[in-house]
Amino acid sequence: MHGKEEQTACLGFAQVDMDRQRRCGFPEVVYAEGKTSEAIVAIFEKQLERGIVPFATRVKPEQMDVLEKRFPQGLANRVARTFRFPPSTPPRNGKIAIITAGTSDLPISEEAKETALWMGVEVVEIQDVGVAGPHRLVENLSRLKGCSAVVVIAGMEGALPSVVGGYVDFPVVAVPTSVGYGANFGGISALLGMLNSCASNVTVVNIDAGFKGGYVAGLIAANRSRRTS
Amino acid sequence: MHGKEEQTACLGFAQVDMDRQRRCGFPEVVYAEGKTSEAIVAIFEKQLERGIVPFATRVKPEQMDVLEKRFPQGLANRVARTFRFPPSTPPRNGKIAIITAGTSDLPISEEAKETALWMGVEVVEIQDVGVAGPHRLVENLSRLKGCSAVVVIAGMEGALPSVVGGYVDFPVVAVPTSVGYGANFGGISALLGMLNSCASNVTVVNIDAGFKGGYVAGLIAANRSRRTS
Amino acid sequence: MHGKEEQTACLGFAQVDMDRQRRCGFPEVVYAEGKTSEAIVAIFEKQLERGIVPFATRVKPEQMDVLEKRFPQGLANRVARTFRFPPSTPPRNGKIAIITAGTSDLPISEEAKETALWMGVEVVEIQDVGVAGPHRLVENLSRLKGCSAVVVIAGMEGALPSVVGGYVDFPVVAVPTSVGYGANFGGISALLGMLNSCASNVTVVNIDAGFKGGYVAGLIAANRSRRTS
Amino acid sequence: MHGKEEQTACLGFAQVDMDRQRRCGFPEVVYAEGKTSEAIVAIFEKQLERGIVPFATRVKPEQMDVLEKRFPQGLANRVARTFRFPPSTPPRNGKIAIITAGTSDLPISEEAKETALWMGVEVVEIQDVGVAGPHRLVENLSRLKGCSAVVVIAGMEGALPSVVGGYVDFPVVAVPTSVGYGANFGGISALLGMLNSCASNVTVVNIDAGFKGGYVAGLIAANRSRRTS
Amino acid sequence: MHGKEEQTACLGFAQVDMDRQRRCGFPEVVYAEGKTSEAIVAIFEKQLERGIVPFATRVKPEQMDVLEKRFPQGLANRVARTFRFPPSTPPRNGKIAIITAGTSDLPISEEAKETALWMGVEVVEIQDVGVAGPHRLVENLSRLKGCSAVVVIAGMEGALPSVVGGYVDFPVVAVPTSVGYGANFGGISALLGMLNSCASNVTVVNIDAGFKGGYVAGLIAANRSRRTS
Amino acid sequence: MHGKEEQTACLGFAQVDMDRQRRCGFPEVVYAEGKTSEAIVAIFEKQLERGIVPFATRVKPEQMDVLEKRFPQGLANRVARTFRFPPSTPPRNGKIAIITAGTSDLPISEEAKETALWMGVEVVEIQDVGVAGPHRLVENLSRLKGCSAVVVIAGMEGALPSVVGGYVDFPVVAVPTSVGYGANFGGISALLGMLNSCASNVTVVNIDAGFKGGYVAGLIAANRSRRTS
Amino acid sequence: MHGKEEQTACLGFAQVDMDRQRRCGFPEVVYAEGKTSEAIVAIFEKQLERGIVPFATRVKPEQMDVLEKRFPQGLANRVARTFRFPPSTPPRNGKIAIITAGTSDLPISEEAKETALWMGVEVVEIQDVGVAGPHRLVENLSRLKGCSAVVVIAGMEGALPSVVGGYVDFPVVAVPTSVGYGANFGGISALLGMLNSCASNVTVVNIDAGFKGGYVAGLIAANRSRRTS
Amino acid sequence: MHGKEEQTACLGFAQVDMDRQRRCGFPEVVYAEGKTSEAIVAIFEKQLERGIVPFATRVKPEQMDVLEKRFPQGLANRVARTFRFPPSTPPRNGKIAIITAGTSDLPISEEAKETALWMGVEVVEIQDVGVAGPHRLVENLSRLKGCSAVVVIAGMEGALPSVVGGYVDFPVVAVPTSVGYGANFGGISALLGMLNSCASNVTVVNIDAGFKGGYVAGLIAANRSRRTS
Repeated sequence: MHGKEEQTACLGFAQVDMDRQRRCGFPEVVYAEGKTSEAIVAIFEKQLERGIVPFATRVKPEQMDVLEKRFPQGLANRVARTFRFPPSTPPRNGKIAIITAGTSDLPISEEAKETALWMGVEVVEIQDVGVAGPHRLVENLSRLKGCSAVVVIAGMEGALPSVVGGYVDFPVVAVPTSVGYGANFGGISALLGMLNSCASNVTVVNIDAGFKGGYVAGLIAANRSRRTS
Repeated sequence: MHGKEEQTACLGFAQVDMDRQRRCGFPEVVYAEGKTSEAIVAIFEKQLERGIVPFATRVKPEQMDVLEKRFPQGLANRVARTFRFPPSTPPRNGKIAIITAGTSDLPISEEAKETALWMGVEVVEIQDVGVAGPHRLVENLSRLKGCSAVVVIAGMEGALPSVVGGYVDFPVVAVPTSVGYGANFGGISALLGMLNSCASNVTVVNIDAGFKGGYVAGLIAANRSRRTS
Repeated sequence: MHGKEEQTACLGFAQVDMDRQRRCGFPEVVYAEGKTSEAIVAIFEKQLERGIVPFATRVKPEQMDVLEKRFPQGLANRVARTFRFPPSTPPRNGKIAIITAGTSDLPISEEAKETALWMGVEVVEIQDVGVAGPHRLVENLSRLKGCSAVVVIAGMEGALPSVVGGYVDFPVVAVPTSVGYGANFGGISALLGMLNSCASNVTVVNIDAGFKGGYVAGLIAANRSRRTS
Repeated sequence: MHGKEEQTACLGFAQVDMDRQRRCGFPEVVYAEGKTSEAIVAIFEKQLERGIVPFATRVKPEQMDVLEKRFPQGLANRVARTFRFPPSTPPRNGKIAIITAGTSDLPISEEAKETALWMGVEVVEIQDVGVAGPHRLVENLSRLKGCSAVVVIAGMEGALPSVVGGYVDFPVVAVPTSVGYGANFGGISALLGMLNSCASNVTVVNIDAGFKGGYVAGLIAANRSRRTS
Repeated sequence: MHGKEEQTACLGFAQVDMDRQRRCGFPEVVYAEGKTSEAIVAIFEKQLERGIVPFATRVKPEQMDVLEKRFPQGLANRVARTFRFPPSTPPRNGKIAIITAGTSDLPISEEAKETALWMGVEVVEIQDVGVAGPHRLVENLSRLKGCSAVVVIAGMEGALPSVVGGYVDFPVVAVPTSVGYGANFGGISALLGMLNSCASNVTVVNIDAGFKGGYVAGLIAANRSRRTS
Repeated sequence: MHGKEEQTACLGFAQVDMDRQRRCGFPEVVYAEGKTSEAIVAIFEKQLERGIVPFATRVKPEQMDVLEKRFPQGLANRVARTFRFPPSTPPRNGKIAIITAGTSDLPISEEAKETALWMGVEVVEIQDVGVAGPHRLVENLSRLKGCSAVVVIAGMEGALPSVVGGYVDFPVVAVPTSVGYGANFGGISALLGMLNSCASNVTVVNIDAGFKGGYVAGLIAANRSRRTS
Repeated sequence: MHGKEEQTACLGFAQVDMDRQRRCGFPEVVYAEGKTSEAIVAIFEKQLERGIVPFATRVKPEQMDVLEKRFPQGLANRVARTFRFPPSTPPRNGKIAIITAGTSDLPISEEAKETALWMGVEVVEIQDVGVAGPHRLVENLSRLKGCSAVVVIAGMEGALPSVVGGYVDFPVVAVPTSVGYGANFGGISALLGMLNSCASNVTVVNIDAGFKGGYVAGLIAANRSRRTS
Repeated sequence: MHGKEEQTACLGFAQVDMDRQRRCGFPEVVYAEGKTSEAIVAIFEKQLERGIVPFATRVKPEQMDVLEKRFPQGLANRVARTFRFPPSTPPRNGKIAIITAGTSDLPISEEAKETALWMGVEVVEIQDVGVAGPHRLVENLSRLKGCSAVVVIAGMEGALPSVVGGYVDFPVVAVPTSVGYGANFGGISALLGMLNSCASNVTVVNIDAGFKGGYVAGLIAANRSRRTS
């Protein structure tokens, strides 16, 4: 029985969607930007109370300090700017790969990885294989075996997803990053490059949206995995 | 044994990627824009010769006339601007839904549908359920059961994918359309709306890219389906 | 008798429009940005002298300190960045609602609320009901009863005004916010979403323009209320 | 008793929102662009059957020919590109004004007027009073008496709403037009001018959105009028 | 006799155009941004040595300190960010007016004024007469008598030049400012408004370009004045 | 004695500003775009009746046919798209120059020339002296003698005004044109180039605004000339 | 002896730069857009008279008809839209390659080829090797041997230059094309992709600028070749 | 014999392309932005070990401190933000020129110079010869003799490359800079100006891309020089 009061937890400042997991497969994720540390703690407590495993993104250093103190069992990743709780079981929701074009894309790649791990999805990481050194990607292709989706993260011209797309038979979730300078316009160059990819299996999320990249890829893997169990 | 000459069919004006199906799961699709009718016919013949099922998008009326005459067994969809060959078997590569916000999104929705059907994927269609009449979507939600992905097609403010995303536990492939006027800027408003969707499961393709929307959703369904067989 | 000197108060650095209330229904509001604290004090004193109730927006913390000290009877709202004077009577200029999509929209929503209260308009607040958790808005619809207009505040894809517009029979004043990241481009995504809203009753103000949102909605309510008294 | 089938009229190609009038005050308006003439006729017939007074905007000449033939009692305005049905009673839903900056804004102004008349709202028209001839507006100000809102339509720099806003005590619904050339960028100059208006009572709709301008102004007038009856 | 070496003063880091006054009527002005204080001092000394009256714009506070110390006879205006040398004679190069829309436009207006004074042009200042308080401009129109050009400075919608243009028979040099927020996009709204002005006598310079506004207006006045002497 | 009815000629569809010449020095110019031929004829007749010399810009071929027939004494320039009436006296309002970068800028240059001639201003024309052939401009510099302003018309990179500005001691009115392709974006490249000109005496009008370029330059010349007479 | 009159051929409507070849290595090329056929003929005749080999780009079909008739010895390429004169000697100015991503880039590629051939440069053509079929480029790499520069032409995401850049030790002149749809924005996506290329040897020209791509690459080859002879 | 492990040096955080020099003529350059100082040191050590001469760009002051300490034989240029190792031989890879429009372009010009020197290319520097002082460039033209390419660096309107292009018979590599204010939009004005240059020999790199400008020009010179040796 689902009463109305169970769907939404009214915390005054926020209305937490407690029903998200049932509808969407995974619980509501806390976007920390613009929230006080106290607000995040309150939401986490409400979620834990209902047996929901919390996950927060875009956590600022000072928020991270509060969360680490309050929830010592949690896992803080300061490069990814995420805070999550350790899974109770090893990953069993399938496998994805995360590929970056350059070393500067690391924070976005870490955010995608933390998201997938929170979802119980296994992650293969391939770093720094941008298109100007073409052999680097080819050397790593065999590692993509068994994946259900790949997150490809790139700034500048954002060409890597198209190249990866030409080698795989599953979706490429392309994440443009704001890495670069000048006419990259904070990531627009990579975003447009990816939206106009000539590879049929490339789909795109927002600039620097490591979370969403990891989430969509993770969802594809998790659904495919569940179906078979 | 894979000789180099088998991977690429050099037709002088074009180098057809005959190896695409092995690498990417489905054969190369012919983008008709900027090609002569003769070129399309030549590619189709080369593909048929190798046992590849052809599919062309963005086919102009005059190209369509030539194709229909030359390949009477083919299926022309003049609203979708596609030409494909009838599948030898009923759809068995899973199921997706295609949802449109308004009646003007039909050509894009038809292109997505034809793509999925060519891939052997079953399609559920839900038309004209834009956000200003909120009950229309809710009335149709039950039809999404059993789908592995949903293509949501909308112009103007492009809000529908976010709303759909809040109801489903699989990926939403959002296709912005150029439908609208004034500050829709040929689809930019819908594109930006979708890229900034607050729903975690929304991913985006190019403006008016019905083909890519259908392809990515179809690929998710096909992979999930194959895994289970 | 209206002499020319009464219409404008020349303070050297500024020409205060003392006649605004007669022409436009409410007095000139002080936009604090780019003014010295002394200038704001001088304008307030000139207004109080003429029986005008002052109101300032975009007040910086250091300006706020000066105003609080000089006018202890005033009401400072540091989240809204506004400073106003307590009304002499309870609200009797009708009622509006203010709805936000997320918790980060709070500063803009507070600015809108302070504006309406300064105008003598009653305010119903509904927070954090963004479109990805669709039941949250529906649960609150009954609270809109008796309103003459609603201010809907949202960042990211800015979809909420369209959804609200489909439920109400009065104008929706949509305020896009700069909340979000990447391709939200400082609020452009929400702005374009709202301008292209498929709901007929949605009208738009500038990005982060909580003041103008509250003012226009308040004006509609006040006029409707006055007409009936 | 409201059964589900009464809310939506499923016509196959479209789902007409038959419940719009109850929720929003006025029935769904048909946006003719991208619809066949037959589709518009079918929707009109369904609406008339249920006692709804139809109204269509952005009607193309060839669609207009069909509508005029099929519904001889209807009113076609080929400048406004609208088709509506004669009201059964004289206007009693209040009064608005429609002001244009130049003669080229006429089609948008006509669309706004037809919308208001369909809503039963009285319209005062003031044409060609752009800001470079400042006395022209002042000469007409007295005609605004008794209005509840004013639609101000302008292209080029879109300055007129700010100037009008400084003279009236009710909302200004500003409609930017694509009139102009060069750096007007199809109406962006006027749109930005209006969004950044220094007048507090100016709110904005989409470029060339005469319908929405007329609708929002008409809704303000109708609500104010109803309240008093 | 004009030798090549006299036209350019090579200072290693810069090539100062010593011939500018002969060709263009006034000497080269030093744009301080990106120059060291020492560089500015060196250029000033070279100019003074040749009898040229120096003028620098966009001077940073720390540069200003150095200049004031080194050239005690100079005039520093820290609001305008300019440094110039006192003219040897009273203004005799004609008269211009400088009008601002709001109090926040002051730094740009001061830069324009300093430029004109350096050119020996008399300046009439009219502050804070933006279009939303229409009587404020009209009250000041008589002060424009005898001017040869007017610099009109405005941010936000940038409507003031059009209005002024409708009242005067000489050129309006419009200076858009970055004053405003949201969709003003750092001055683009005002820039586009001014470029699209419906008044025939409005011409435009760069955003926040107080110097260029003052220079062009001053040049018009100086030329007209010289012709008559 | 100036009665109100004399300032504006109400023609129903338009309110002609009959007082413009007194306030602004020259009469209102008819912008033909979006007007019927009959409307233009009516305005011209009203102007001629009051002794005003008419001038129309952006006249379409079919409008031109009507005007030529109705006013055989008029001068049609189909390249400039202008129609004006022969001046009663030879030019005595000073002299300007009009310089173009390339042969494709001719229509804009002709519009500027017709405007100046209508104002009674003498015109020196220098065609096709773009910056890639630097000697071409230098060869023509002596022809600028005696001018009070120069209109410089250029598309593509719009560099010519900066170069001209370095040679003259009067204002350069820069007119960007939409000539070019690709990243010229319909004239934006030239517009931005001119707005950012490093020459102090360069001021800018709208893209393709030959009329405004000629008008502002003509006004400078006319005023300077009148002052001296 | 070089007299001033020899540098420029004044044809009234145009000033042909007869001295270009001496200064820049190759004669002035005629940009046909916006010129009458007669004008092109006149320029060609003047050039031939002085022993200059003419070359025209962006020639429209009707202009081409005139040129073919008047100069039967000329070579018209209607895909490239160019008209040139046969070289008197075989190519001896070095070698370049021209690579396209897709078959739709052909018109631009032809324009680049005609330019290089006119310059006496040998051309290697590699068509349709876009990044989604990665083996196609690798199969053709050996053909680049002996080239001094490569023109890489691509629309959509414009990724090909980066990939080619990773394989070669000479400059890549990248030409973005307007091929694509939706968010390619007429070539902006490819342009930005190329400007932000992570390959160090990639330089960029305007959208669809086949001429300039061929010219710069040809100039590099010609200079390298000349140096060695 | 080239084993796979020799092409890429896997450092965990990065995959250094050790084969770049063989394929592209010069080794991989380290882009310091977003890398830790330790990472740069590790890459440098790996490169030195293999006999590769390291070069890093966009080095931050704190990174520079570490590099100078660790590699005392290295050359730090803090204006250019580069760190390189002294060449073992004098420049013998040809000659290029680097020209700037203004003194503020110096950091970009220094980056280009350091790049060329690292490549063993001789550099001629010409500073501060922007188009508004036209004689300054002409005075320096003779210094371009013997160059194979020229890097032209300019902000604001970016007109200088076009002017230089008209004087030389080798490629102009144009580098737009973000120098300027207002409508320069962080370098867009200069970028567009250069892309639309009317000079045939102008090619463009990214905004502020001094490295790429120097690299491409240096490559042209080096190749031309090598060919002849």
